[in-house]
Amino acid sequence: MTAGASASSVGVVSPQTMHFEEPLALTSGAQLAQYDVRYETYGTLNAEHSNAVLVAHALNASHHVAGTYAEQPRSTGWWDNMVGPGKPIDTRHFFVIGVNNVGSCFGSTGPMSMNPATGKPYGAAFPVVTVEDWVNVQSRLADSLGIHRFAAVVGGSLGGMQALSWAIRYPQRIAHCVAIATTPKLSAQNIAFNDVARSAIQSDPDFHGGDYYAHSVVPRRGLRVARMIGHITYLSGDDMTERFGRSLRTRDYAFGYGAEFEVESYLRYQGEKFSEYFDANTYLLITRALDYFDPAREHDGDLVRALAPALARFLLISFTTDWRFAPERGREIVAALIANGREVSYSEIDAPHGHDAFLLDDPRYHHLMAAYFERIAAELA
Amino acid sequence: MTAGASASSVGVVSPQTMHFEEPLALTSGAQLAQYDVRYETYGTLNAEHSNAVLVAHALNASHHVAGTYAEQPRSTGWWDNMVGPGKPIDTRHFFVIGVNNVGSCFGSTGPMSMNPATGKPYGAAFPVVTVEDWVNVQSRLADSLGIHRFAAVVGGSLGGMQALSWAIRYPQRIAHCVAIATTPKLSAQNIAFNDVARSAIQSDPDFHGGDYYAHSVVPRRGLRVARMIGHITYLSGDDMTERFGRSLRTRDYAFGYGAEFEVESYLRYQGEKFSEYFDANTYLLITRALDYFDPAREHDGDLVRALAPALARFLLISFTTDWRFAPERGREIVAALIANGREVSYSEIDAPHGHDAFLLDDPRYHHLMAAYFERIAAELA
Repeated sequence: MTAGASASSVGVVSPQTMHFEEPLALTSGAQLAQYDVRYETYGTLNAEHSNAVLVAHALNASHHVAGTYAEQPRSTGWWDNMVGPGKPIDTRHFFVIGVNNVGSCFGSTGPMSMNPATGKPYGAAFPVVTVEDWVNVQSRLADSLGIHRFAAVVGGSLGGMQALSWAIRYPQRIAHCVAIATTPKLSAQNIAFNDVARSAIQSDPDFHGGDYYAHSVVPRRGLRVARMIGHITYLSGDDMTERFGRSLRTRDYAFGYGAEFEVESYLRYQGEKFSEYFDANTYLLITRALDYFDPAREHDGDLVRALAPALARFLLISFTTDWRFAPERGREIVAALIANGREVSYSEIDAPHGHDAFLLDDPRYHHLMAAYFERIAAELA
Repeated sequence: MTAGASASSVGVVSPQTMHFEEPLALTSGAQLAQYDVRYETYGTLNAEHSNAVLVAHALNASHHVAGTYAEQPRSTGWWDNMVGPGKPIDTRHFFVIGVNNVGSCFGSTGPMSMNPATGKPYGAAFPVVTVEDWVNVQSRLADSLGIHRFAAVVGGSLGGMQALSWAIRYPQRIAHCVAIATTPKLSAQNIAFNDVARSAIQSDPDFHGGDYYAHSVVPRRGLRVARMIGHITYLSGDDMTERFGRSLRTRDYAFGYGAEFEVESYLRYQGEKFSEYFDANTYLLITRALDYFDPAREHDGDLVRALAPALARFLLISFTTDWRFAPERGREIVAALIANGREVSYSEIDAPHGHDAFLLDDPRYHHLMAAYFERIAAELA
């Protein structure tokens, strides 16, 4: 806990669901006739409705950002170290919303949901959605909650892309954009890692072209491998050396092909755990949303022009050992914002934990976030 | 071609096979009762038997280092740009031997070979072999060919590990050790990538615990994914950006999960091609040999002590963009050799192509190799 001795949890929370009947036109040209959005809120919306903070999630997270569920003590939200009373995003000042994106597998409409056109799960029929589609859905949720303008939209990694997209698409509706460990677009290597993960899932015989629900199976083998690949890219090489090195679980080499190095055992365990709760179609969908994100694309690759509509003030944070979305990628965004005359704070934090650093409570990172959000809170007073 | 206008191919070559009846005691404690070793030679052994150069292969290569096979014009050896008349390892001066390691799938005894104890392919029963085991086999081959001392043992990546092991195990039998793009041991991240690849193979239902030969199937899905993962680590991120960027094969986003980015198409093709010719058990075995290589291990991690027996002169080469075995890893070897008072030449070549650079004909790299081998040739004269 880094943000003061008084920091504590938001406590027991409950998710809510908002149903939308108005069709959603997607970037792809397809549409969702109707859909649910699962979300959680922490703190209290003020009378002016000016203190709302939207938290956008990354690949495998959800609307469950902070607190725990009743009688599930291990159900702590994925960013509980960041959001709560006395924490950097302080729920004594802010009304914080966590939202599960459409296409995900944690309660919002996605591939596992019933397709009203067929009466069966969507499966492979669920349309490909983009970061821009998610931001549109989030804006409808904001409308329904009576929030015209967010004090801040904040996210790390894929969540940071959503924050950037908010600043571009709804410039009047976002005072601050906080984008952490993110990039203006994936590199060829980033796409390559995503595609290997997708290939592992797609080639699992239990995938059945995406319609595995009908076969009462899950492509767990593919999901395991996909997660193992992803996990390697979330950690820095030095961090892996520090944590695991070449340590063995056995006294000596076992001369076999099982998990005998600690790092193998750790990765296989991560893959196993992930395959127990995550949906394979959602994995395809979310990695594709990552691949497609590229706001400069419709401006001939010019990120300055892509960011020209933005009016928000920005906080960008990168981590030195993040080789997935390296600081160079964050600086591209900063440079484009400065070229547009926007107000930008930028910090490169020398943290050892690679891309995953955005989820951890490094004191410098948390102090920076706390200071920035204190300033936002002061503007509201 | 970088080594002069007169450089040319060794021409049509034929592999040979040496059969060994004397059992081979392996590092694991197991033994091979008898085995074949496939090899090729280029150039002529001089009267003193002093001009032999052994080329050790890396993960997916073989004894077929240079030249082509009769009536197979596309069968060029994997290091044909390096070995030949007028090339850096000049076959007008040297008698070059390419050797296929035991456990591989290109003619030396391996998991696909008949197990004399059962009359069936070894499959999962083939023992795990190590870099040290390979070097022992290579020394027996050298004995059989009448070569007491190599002018040089040379290799890149896993081949470089074999060259280092030669210098340690048979110090009197190697005048020069040329180790390229290599490391004294894999890092946790290196092992992690290997284990994901192995997991992809092992979890393919067609793997059958390694005994797929009996089922007349091949775990191609797993092999494809394994190769895709490996391939990403052979290229530099910048090189991938340069070659593929975010280019699409389609005019616009296809909003699906097929190979629509050029980089996806390239990787899937590489995976497909690999799965057509490479044996899955060999993939497990060779990646495990990589994991296990760690000559300092039996000296409490002290590489200086591990390299103390070496008497050879050394050429070490690293490539700046190689993030698999980065220059820092090469420098560890250099420092340990210098601490032992060995004569070491070291070059860090600023090549864009990542780990794969050791196979490519970058002029600076080839000029360096040519100069070093000219010096060796001069010593022979």
